[in-house]
Amino acid sequence: MGRFWEEFSVGEVLVTGRRTIDGGDVSRYAGLSGDFNPLHVDAEYAKATPFGERVAHGILTLAVSHGQQNLGGWFEGTTLALLGLDRLRFAAPVKFGDTVRTEMTVKETRGSSKPDRGVVLFDVAVRNQHGDVVCSYEEAVLMRRKG
Amino acid sequence: MGRFWEEFSVGEVLVTGRRTIDGGDVSRYAGLSGDFNPLHVDAEYAKATPFGERVAHGILTLAVSHGQQNLGGWFEGTTLALLGLDRLRFAAPVKFGDTVRTEMTVKETRGSSKPDRGVVLFDVAVRNQHGDVVCSYEEAVLMRRKG
Amino acid sequence: MGRFWEEFSVGEVLVTGRRTIDGGDVSRYAGLSGDFNPLHVDAEYAKATPFGERVAHGILTLAVSHGQQNLGGWFEGTTLALLGLDRLRFAAPVKFGDTVRTEMTVKETRGSSKPDRGVVLFDVAVRNQHGDVVCSYEEAVLMRRKG
Amino acid sequence: MGRFWEEFSVGEVLVTGRRTIDGGDVSRYAGLSGDFNPLHVDAEYAKATPFGERVAHGILTLAVSHGQQNLGGWFEGTTLALLGLDRLRFAAPVKFGDTVRTEMTVKETRGSSKPDRGVVLFDVAVRNQHGDVVCSYEEAVLMRRKG
Amino acid sequence: MGRFWEEFSVGEVLVTGRRTIDGGDVSRYAGLSGDFNPLHVDAEYAKATPFGERVAHGILTLAVSHGQQNLGGWFEGTTLALLGLDRLRFAAPVKFGDTVRTEMTVKETRGSSKPDRGVVLFDVAVRNQHGDVVCSYEEAVLMRRKG
Amino acid sequence: MGRFWEEFSVGEVLVTGRRTIDGGDVSRYAGLSGDFNPLHVDAEYAKATPFGERVAHGILTLAVSHGQQNLGGWFEGTTLALLGLDRLRFAAPVKFGDTVRTEMTVKETRGSSKPDRGVVLFDVAVRNQHGDVVCSYEEAVLMRRKG
Repeated sequence: MGRFWEEFSVGEVLVTGRRTIDGGDVSRYAGLSGDFNPLHVDAEYAKATPFGERVAHGILTLAVSHGQQNLGGWFEGTTLALLGLDRLRFAAPVKFGDTVRTEMTVKETRGSSKPDRGVVLFDVAVRNQHGDVVCSYEEAVLMRRKG
Repeated sequence: MGRFWEEFSVGEVLVTGRRTIDGGDVSRYAGLSGDFNPLHVDAEYAKATPFGERVAHGILTLAVSHGQQNLGGWFEGTTLALLGLDRLRFAAPVKFGDTVRTEMTVKETRGSSKPDRGVVLFDVAVRNQHGDVVCSYEEAVLMRRKG
Repeated sequence: MGRFWEEFSVGEVLVTGRRTIDGGDVSRYAGLSGDFNPLHVDAEYAKATPFGERVAHGILTLAVSHGQQNLGGWFEGTTLALLGLDRLRFAAPVKFGDTVRTEMTVKETRGSSKPDRGVVLFDVAVRNQHGDVVCSYEEAVLMRRKG
Repeated sequence: MGRFWEEFSVGEVLVTGRRTIDGGDVSRYAGLSGDFNPLHVDAEYAKATPFGERVAHGILTLAVSHGQQNLGGWFEGTTLALLGLDRLRFAAPVKFGDTVRTEMTVKETRGSSKPDRGVVLFDVAVRNQHGDVVCSYEEAVLMRRKG
Repeated sequence: MGRFWEEFSVGEVLVTGRRTIDGGDVSRYAGLSGDFNPLHVDAEYAKATPFGERVAHGILTLAVSHGQQNLGGWFEGTTLALLGLDRLRFAAPVKFGDTVRTEMTVKETRGSSKPDRGVVLFDVAVRNQHGDVVCSYEEAVLMRRKG
Repeated sequence: MGRFWEEFSVGEVLVTGRRTIDGGDVSRYAGLSGDFNPLHVDAEYAKATPFGERVAHGILTLAVSHGQQNLGGWFEGTTLALLGLDRLRFAAPVKFGDTVRTEMTVKETRGSSKPDRGVVLFDVAVRNQHGDVVCSYEEAVLMRRKG
């Protein structure tokens, strides 16, 4: 069972496990989303870009990051809904073979008009194996309250 | 070849093709992202939620919508980078078998300090087969300029 | 080990196992190929076509049929190359849940300038669970010779 | 929306975007089709073949090429059916990491007994990053007419 | 971080989250493993078996169960190796749409010749939504010790 | 059609084809099972383990081995059920790019109370390209009898 609304404290940082993003993941994401933009699937095109090689789709990085949050176990069965994301930015490319982890800092906890639930706001940073932020966003989740 | 920065006009609406989101897509997304939250993969749990059944992951809806933009052909080979998303909201659930399309309204076009590129801002709405908005967001894309 | 060139007799019929083609297979084929034509992925569009529902991609039926040939074990390790296909036709739609099998009739066996190999020509028919041909083609395969 | 029958001119050449075919694509194709022929999935076996390494399945190359046609946007919503392919040949192997594109030359446009549709015949060539043809075929598509 | 060897007590029961096994999962497992046995992929054949319909591969049930153990978070980063399984049995079929969970009872904890590690033995039961055991096995895992 | 119970002789060895296990297969298995243990998906973590690099999941090796049995054609349509596995052990890691094959030695054939079926017991060894056993197990299968 995941955490309830009351169990998140402002300033607390949740750090997930890591995952390596491979070419096979990029292929599968292209197929699932239908995003065959040449930046991601055309090695010849990618050579001529500033990146010099194919890079992962930004939304794939977001999807992996969001999955890492769930793999952390904090949200299982206590999340009512993902309310939304804000200020999603892609600060650096994710290259094939890069390994990312996600850090979630609790920014705010907010009640709701319904007494059995509340909102938790996170500042989220996705970092690669060098510690560089590759993606960041704010996330608002509607969580169950305990009592 | 996609469109150049100059070829987007404020107020113009780009409408993509449609796609049905099936249970098989949700399964594949869970596996690719690692997001096995019971809202999406546990039919017994889902029966007891307000939705009454499993629903698609919000980020899957975003991924499909983002893929639909690329399937439209407007961005192929003229996009330099996805700069970011803002105000991503999930207004209604996407149920297995729902069919979605994406509407992008050009909100603003903005120059850049480099003369060969510019930013295009879109207001994006994802609608289901009943015309209801299920997801909305603002998107900023860095595009090539023509001359 | 599969069969050698000498082990195919003109007029012989090879019949494969069956396989049910599901919506999940069509989704995965769309993603692998990039073919998101609305006939296959848009349930609303498909209602208005003569088929009345989404149908499998023709090339997916071909892929499954070609896989069934390999699952039959006749070609494992004795095939040098697939030379080509001719007269590939799609006689009837394959609907989600249809179950197909492949029948290969040896049409001709032909020597080659190199003594260690030869060509086998097949007339191939793919039939659904009602016995109707849904796809047919001629296939030429370069096979090893025994001695 | 794709093109109508009247909008194809004999001699015109449609050129698609490119796509790199990776080992991950070959794995997924093997699984989707059931074609685990050692030429494609057994690295030890492949070393001893004239190719010296594993190569993509011919039908995978065809599937990618056919998907590229759809990604081009010419066929979306105006195609009634894929009638068939002829003279499908595999002129050279596609190795893992090769990048292919598809060129379609309009060979013939033909009316139909029904006034709302017509046939378009294409000569199709799939080329790798060196410009070599790896696969070629003739394709007949039934398209909607405008008026 | 998962649990260390010392943190498992004999008699303790770990219960995982649940997951619904769909036809799409069976399709993907068939492709990944190459197991296209008609019990799993041929709807016509399956009608004539005692099950009356296609059922999930036993090893897919095992794979999902093993994944559920990892989704529980107890083993992340503290597992040195999966030593083996014993007495793996399939007591009842898993039908498409069934929802399973995994219960692990700690049966024994055993030291090792190396002081930094130890073995934990589990009795594992996989149950469907009706509470019936569909699969059971014993599992031995090599875990890190704390101090 | 596969073999009937009477067609297996004690001491006989069945050898399957080979298959290379790639990083793309490990990614897909992680997603299908939900097993994102860092031994398999986190390249940074894996560097610090005795293996020095990511390795395949043990249950993936089992799944591939079990699929190879089916690709051999001996079990198609004559298997009534997989009864179980015993003494499943993982003797050596399977690294990305390793190529495995499966050897099944018939250990025992046993009648059943029902005259139309019987049990076959196999000793199974999975070997890599160097001939080393990477995985071994005993397997019991319920097979149809001929007459």
